[in-house]
Amino acid sequence: MKRARIAYQGRDLWVAVAADGHGLTLPDGRLLAAADAHWLPPITHGASVYALGLNYADHSRELGFAAKQATPLVFLKGGNCFVGHRGTTPHPVGVTQMHPECELVAVIGRVARNVSRADALACVAGYTIANDYALREYLENYLRPNVAVKNRDATTPLGPWIVDAADVLDPQALTLSTRVNGAEVQHGSTADMILDVAGLIEYLSSFVTLMPGDMILTGTPHGVHFCAPGDEVVCQIEGIGTLTSHLIAPPGRKA
Amino acid sequence: MKRARIAYQGRDLWVAVAADGHGLTLPDGRLLAAADAHWLPPITHGASVYALGLNYADHSRELGFAAKQATPLVFLKGGNCFVGHRGTTPHPVGVTQMHPECELVAVIGRVARNVSRADALACVAGYTIANDYALREYLENYLRPNVAVKNRDATTPLGPWIVDAADVLDPQALTLSTRVNGAEVQHGSTADMILDVAGLIEYLSSFVTLMPGDMILTGTPHGVHFCAPGDEVVCQIEGIGTLTSHLIAPPGRKA
Repeated sequence: MKRARIAYQGRDLWVAVAADGHGLTLPDGRLLAAADAHWLPPITHGASVYALGLNYADHSRELGFAAKQATPLVFLKGGNCFVGHRGTTPHPVGVTQMHPECELVAVIGRVARNVSRADALACVAGYTIANDYALREYLENYLRPNVAVKNRDATTPLGPWIVDAADVLDPQALTLSTRVNGAEVQHGSTADMILDVAGLIEYLSSFVTLMPGDMILTGTPHGVHFCAPGDEVVCQIEGIGTLTSHLIAPPGRKA
Repeated sequence: MKRARIAYQGRDLWVAVAADGHGLTLPDGRLLAAADAHWLPPITHGASVYALGLNYADHSRELGFAAKQATPLVFLKGGNCFVGHRGTTPHPVGVTQMHPECELVAVIGRVARNVSRADALACVAGYTIANDYALREYLENYLRPNVAVKNRDATTPLGPWIVDAADVLDPQALTLSTRVNGAEVQHGSTADMILDVAGLIEYLSSFVTLMPGDMILTGTPHGVHFCAPGDEVVCQIEGIGTLTSHLIAPPGRKA
């Protein structure tokens, strides 16, 4: 089962998505073609969204850091950064080091506090995809993935939908990839996460309460590729889906 | 005019607060004594909350850092961390370096993007108080005020109310103080902010859109004082109000 959030006839609706991804069922039973949907990011208002830096060893090495950090590099995302499938993301004027980051996202389904690794995956409602774009030239220090780097408006495409956890056999055996204008620039496997989904839930729930709707963006594999306005960027995760984003020049003002 | 958010007879309500802080007017006109209110943090669900590290020169020096950073140290707060006036904050077992931080909070009132310093204060709806507790022993690096340090459940008392911006003559001329069990441990002035409220709005709005309800926690003056379970911690800002928090030992589990 897949669930998505769309705008339809003036409403913000959660809909069921057919197994093949092509048909949407509205809450009143009407059917809509996916091609006609205005996709919104599948996020619950007010949810806390945690994101990981350097959670793939190959990406850490690519950036010249140790494969494993002393403690996980976790930061928060603000609601302004999310945008749905097929949405547009402003590529700020003058920026030359903006690059996509394909990430598996775990969506929390039940209250989780001090959850053991063994019980952690039972707290996951489902999975989706994020493209957690980074503006590398604003990164003063890898310890500070700050708001200018990671939280500008509409710079985190999310979706297209949430796939039920029951339909994801093993979240640590999924191929991830990113294509820019058709050319593959990232290719990895969730098997290469340093702290896997269960470990991230165990770690985070040791000091915060994870609530239904909260999300964990689990980091990205190697493949830093700088993009430009006009690029079409497609993030794909095996068994989850395909998330498309269009980079645009911000209209008529500095960004 | 002051506005507060309270729980009353099973509802989550915004109420008007009398000028003296003692009477609340419910939306239906009924009056309630402030002493009988169950205060909730005066925050809009889904708002983005930005917080500043090292935004007072005296506090930066106290911690051994340069008075001014190359770029403002901004981080995001998640919804799980907020708690209302007179609420309780868990003091985690084994932690010895948890300290209060009294901060002026600017609440955004209109959409702000690329706002000049001159126009910035017109975007502020009002002001409130935050006690942005830090767990200093979890701070690996001042560049990473991470979730274990700054975003545990209920570790950011907020309130008691929002004072309309029109009623705050000069947000940069307010005395702030913190008392722990009656003894003053912080005493400063918003005049000593490195980047003032107008400057923070100019800076943040240069790369994100600030939305109505979004908040900016503007940093804290010097006075690092480690607290313990059982402490009563009172943050006060001249012309805004008095925010009380009670530190408790977390019941029956590690925190």
